[in-house]
Formats: sequence, structure tokens, C-alpha cells
Amino acid sequence: MSTPARPLLQVIIGSSRPGRIGSAFAEWFTGLAEKHGAFDVETIDLAEVGLPFLDEPNHPKLRQYTHQHTLDWSATVERADAYVLVTPEYNYGYSAVLKNALDFLCHEWADKPVGFVSYGGVGAGVRAVQQLKQVVTTLRMVPVLESVNIPFAWGKLAEGRVAPEDAALDQSAELMLDELARLTRKLRTA
Amino acid sequence: MSTPARPLLQVIIGSSRPGRIGSAFAEWFTGLAEKHGAFDVETIDLAEVGLPFLDEPNHPKLRQYTHQHTLDWSATVERADAYVLVTPEYNYGYSAVLKNALDFLCHEWADKPVGFVSYGGVGAGVRAVQQLKQVVTTLRMVPVLESVNIPFAWGKLAEGRVAPEDAALDQSAELMLDELARLTRKLRTA
Amino acid sequence: MSTPARPLLQVIIGSSRPGRIGSAFAEWFTGLAEKHGAFDVETIDLAEVGLPFLDEPNHPKLRQYTHQHTLDWSATVERADAYVLVTPEYNYGYSAVLKNALDFLCHEWADKPVGFVSYGGVGAGVRAVQQLKQVVTTLRMVPVLESVNIPFAWGKLAEGRVAPEDAALDQSAELMLDELARLTRKLRTA
Amino acid sequence: MSTPARPLLQVIIGSSRPGRIGSAFAEWFTGLAEKHGAFDVETIDLAEVGLPFLDEPNHPKLRQYTHQHTLDWSATVERADAYVLVTPEYNYGYSAVLKNALDFLCHEWADKPVGFVSYGGVGAGVRAVQQLKQVVTTLRMVPVLESVNIPFAWGKLAEGRVAPEDAALDQSAELMLDELARLTRKLRTA
Repeated sequence: MSTPARPLLQVIIGSSRPGRIGSAFAEWFTGLAEKHGAFDVETIDLAEVGLPFLDEPNHPKLRQYTHQHTLDWSATVERADAYVLVTPEYNYGYSAVLKNALDFLCHEWADKPVGFVSYGGVGAGVRAVQQLKQVVTTLRMVPVLESVNIPFAWGKLAEGRVAPEDAALDQSAELMLDELARLTRKLRTA
Repeated sequence: MSTPARPLLQVIIGSSRPGRIGSAFAEWFTGLAEKHGAFDVETIDLAEVGLPFLDEPNHPKLRQYTHQHTLDWSATVERADAYVLVTPEYNYGYSAVLKNALDFLCHEWADKPVGFVSYGGVGAGVRAVQQLKQVVTTLRMVPVLESVNIPFAWGKLAEGRVAPEDAALDQSAELMLDELARLTRKLRTA
Repeated sequence: MSTPARPLLQVIIGSSRPGRIGSAFAEWFTGLAEKHGAFDVETIDLAEVGLPFLDEPNHPKLRQYTHQHTLDWSATVERADAYVLVTPEYNYGYSAVLKNALDFLCHEWADKPVGFVSYGGVGAGVRAVQQLKQVVTTLRMVPVLESVNIPFAWGKLAEGRVAPEDAALDQSAELMLDELARLTRKLRTA
Repeated sequence: MSTPARPLLQVIIGSSRPGRIGSAFAEWFTGLAEKHGAFDVETIDLAEVGLPFLDEPNHPKLRQYTHQHTLDWSATVERADAYVLVTPEYNYGYSAVLKNALDFLCHEWADKPVGFVSYGGVGAGVRAVQQLKQVVTTLRMVPVLESVNIPFAWGKLAEGRVAPEDAALDQSAELMLDELARLTRKLRTA
């Protein structure tokens, strides 16, 4: 008897600037997601993906991609069942590198739930999340209510890692993973 | 052999001011929804519901309502499987009367798809819709991408009714109803 | 030699529900604004203003008001040179009572700076502020960047008052008042 | 007696993808701005500016730039007194290339009015404008209410130019230029 495959969750690091702290929060969240057990987990670092600014001549809904980097990015995103966007907040909005990666594709994102790990100052990055909700729903993703929002984020890090442990933060991650799993089940039905 | 019950769609009129035109668009859309056939259809006029400004002392997620008008509104919203909000745009945002009706409740809205009929000037009311998406996702509704957006709305009316017929507008309504039906099926699964 | 009149700042309490905590933050902020000295300060409690849901038949830009409550509200708002909106966050948006008060008028608000005192949970109410910026700029108010954002707001209160003192919060209020004063001077010029 | 210098308006083309139509609307608007007469006018094409994704290690408010491309971009933006952003709408948000150019700098943008030329489908690009208002106010720009919003934009072009003439569109541009000039005067005062 075969075990049904677990759905695949991609944790996407939405910043690429030198000195970014998003990679530390992505690493921390990925560890919790693996322990959670509802998903196979994969980390996608947009700095490594290395897309240029949108350079496709056709609307992505046509799926007539002309560049190898777009075909590769399409294959990567297509294979996931759910996403978590690890998002900085720049000027109360989302980063260019994250928006660019979202805009490159269309149908690959559809009918999949999406959660957010945001970080910032007093607002914990939630202003970027709110703008992103208006974007991801346009791509037919379903944003989950549960969220991981990290205020005064620089103070949560020691030597580039999330430390010390913060039980409230861990719990918010677990609740978001529960909700992502619940919605993944619903959205995969025919 | 019994016929399975059709899901219930509520068309909610989100304006109540004297001279409003939202009721005309709601009447028009309700007619199309009935012809579409995927839903039983009910129109809710917030002017008739007549809620006061939010006057419950407890957070609605506790569902400890203290007023009869809240209990009645809760029973109304609870029975629907999907919603269409007919929304004006006031100062590039949503109306107070619509936001107030949303804020009164919580769990009643959850796990149900929601579409929008918006109307306005050059922007067709889409700025109000975008703000509403940030609100309805907080109530765990799932906003559908397909939308009915009516630009220069006063020009679409004659003697208080939508006339003459506008095939593009009718088609946008049909596409939205298709998508509402598709998501209602997914979201009702256990 | 006469002393030039100080500009008038109105602190508007944007919640009216039983059990609201916005009035405590408004009282606290008003005290700081009076000490700051750049403005004469007036508190406006929308619960006392008692406007109904928007019931004017004409667009407020025409200024053809038909109700006494609108004429009174118009005279109140007209006399201020700057505003601070004390705003709750309901479902990641603004309250109906605050939006309704804004929508009733038009030219009365124009060419005046506006700041925000927001309160909430982890996000400190900033999601409501961001939606309000899209509304106030439509009314030609100029939102200031400096802001007072109070996270986990219930923990800042003791016996209905802001206590104990929080130096960081007091400083954010002072910076916002400085910026309101700076912009008031610019915007009053011919 | 010398003639006082006219303020400088920069028209910034916020798209760079192959096949973009924003450059045609920028060319059209620049022509009208020159005829209007209140400003010296300069067109900035972000495709030519050619910034990489944000690669500065320090927060731009520190103005400690480490790359020549940042120093050049800073000098360009600094010299303007007002801006018009010609913005596409991608997935109901702003383009990566425009957000990236905004995020690179900070004080250079402050205390200057900004208008928008947006283009799109039924919504005329206004959803991108609304998100941009939340960004530009964070950079202390003052967004003007008057706006140029072009619905069904592809239909306004013939052979890569705006044609035939559209009196309503021309008038919206003139009103926006009037308001930019009015606010430039106010904001330049000490």
C-alpha cells in the first residue's frame, strides 16, 4: 500500500539586497514547516533564481514564454501546492524582486493557498502583506488569514539566526501551517 | 431520487443613501444570477436591514451577540454559501454601511467565495473593490478574480434600470457566476 | 502688537462602539498636543457628533447640504487647520463611523495635513492607516509620514487611561506634531 | 531683472518590458506638459536608467550610497521639483521596475508633488495608482488628486502614438498639471 504524497510547500525569500535578513527568517520558518509535517518543504531564494526585470513580450496568461529563465521559473512554481512568501517591507510596499517573480507567471500560481512571513519595525511588515494580498488574489492564489508578522525584526536575530526562541512566533507559524494544510486540501479537489 | 439543493447566493446592496444607483445594478445582476442557474439567489438590501453603527461590546469572533438586530443579521448571513457585494466607491474606498454590515459578524462569512459588482466613474469602482479584498480575506471569504466593474455608471441607467443591454457587462456577470460556482464547490468540501 | 493665532488641530475619535479604547488614546494624545504648543487643540468625539449613515442626496463636492447635522459637521471640520484621526482597525480596514464622517463632507478637509494615532494587535493598526491614506488623499488632505502606532494596545491601558508612561510612544507623538506643524505652515500659504 | 526659473517636472516611464505602451503615453503627456507652460519638463525612461535590483547595503535614508548607478540616480531625481509617474498595472499592483527606482532613494523625493498617468483595461490602471499612493507618501511626496487614467489603453494608440486626439484625456492632463503647479508653489516655501 502506497502512502499518498504530501503536498509541496515552497518558502520563497522575497528579498535579495546585500545585508537582507529575510533569509534568516526563511531558514527558521522552513525548519518549523518540516517539523510540522503536513508538507514537503522547499526553499526558493529569489537571489539565486536571478530573474531579470520582466522581459517577456507576451502576457503570462498566454504562457508563450520566450526565455529559458522564464521556462525554468515556470517549472519551479508549477510543482508546488502551496506557498509562503517571506516578505520585507520597503516604503510600506512589497519589494521589486518579489513582485517581479510573481508577475513573470500566471496560471502556475492559481488555486493554491499562500501565507506570509513578514518582518519590519512597529508594523511588523503587515503593510507589504496587505498590498501583496491584492496581487496574489489576482493570480488566483488564496491568502490565508493566519500570518507570521515579526515586529522590530532586527532584535530577533543573533549571529544571523533567529534567536532566542520565541514561543509566540513559533505558534503563529504553526497556526499558519495548519491553515495552509486545510486550504490545500480544499483547493486540490476537482 | 432527490435533487441536491442548489447553494444559496446572496446579493448584498452596499449603499443606502437617497438617490443611490446600486439597487438598480443589484436588480440587474440578480436577474442574471437567476438565469445562470447555479445558485438560489436572494437579495439583501442593507437599507432595509437597518443595522446601527456597530454597537456590540464583544468581538464578533466570540459570537456573544447582545442585540436582536445582530442575531437576525447573523442568521441571514449564515444561511448563504456565496456572496456578491454590490459596492459603490466613496472617496476611493468602501461605504460605511457596507463595512459596518461586514464588521458586525465573523464566522458567518468564513470559507465562502465572494464576488463584486462595482460601479463608478473612470475607475469603475475598482478602488473600493481592492480595499474590500483586504477586508473580506480577513473574514476568511475567498474573493474571486472575475468581477463586474461598471465605468461611468450613471450612463448605463434609464429610468432607474440598467438599459439598454450591454453584452460585455452581461458576459462579465456570467463569468463571475461561473467562478463563484466553481469555488463554492471546492470550499464546501470537508 | 497682536500674537498671530495658532492653527487649530482637531483630534477625531474614530470609534464609537461600547467598550472602545480609542477615547483613552485620544485623551492621552490631546494632552501631549497641548503641551507641544504649536496648535490650539480640540477633541471631536464621533460618538457625540452622532451622524447617521450618509443621507445627503447630493455629492458633497456640491456643498448643497440638506440636513442640519451636515451643516453642523461642516462648520466643525471647516474651522480646523490640521487633523489627527484616532483610528481602530476592524478587519484590517477602517471603522464605518470614521469613514462615514469623512464621506459626509468634501472641500472642508482640503489642503490640510492629517496624522494618525492607530492601535491594534501585532500590526499596531497600520493596515487601517494605509487604507485611510487612500481616502484622505482623495479629500486633498496631506497625510504625514510620522505616525503614532500602538501595538498590543490593550496592554498600554490601566483603568481606562494610558499608563504607565511610554517614552517611545510620547516621542512618536511629538515627531508627528512637529511634522503636522511644518506642513500646516506650507499648506496655508497662498 | 531676471525671470525666476520654472520648476522642473520629471515624467518617469515606469515600465521597461518589450512591447510596453507606457512610452507612448509618456511622450504624449510630455508634449502637453511642455505646452502647459508651468514647468520645464524632462522625460526619464527607467529602461535607459537601467538600475539593477536594489543592491545598496545601507538604508537610503542614510544617503551612504556605494554604487555609481545610485549616485547618478540620486542626482537625477534630486534636481526635480515635481514628478509624474507613468505607470502600468501588473496584477493590480505596480511594476517592479518602478518600485525599485523609488526604493533606491529617500530624501531626494521629499516635499514634492507627484501625479500619475495610468493605463490599463476597465480599471484604467487606478489599482496600481492606489498602491503607489501608499508608497509615495512614505517618501514624503504629496500625491495630487487630479489624475490621468486611461481605460482600454491599447485602443488609444495607432502606430505607437496616442491617436486620435481625445479631448477628455487632454483635459485631465491639463487639470493635473494645474494642480501639480499649485502644490509645487506651496511645498517649495520654507
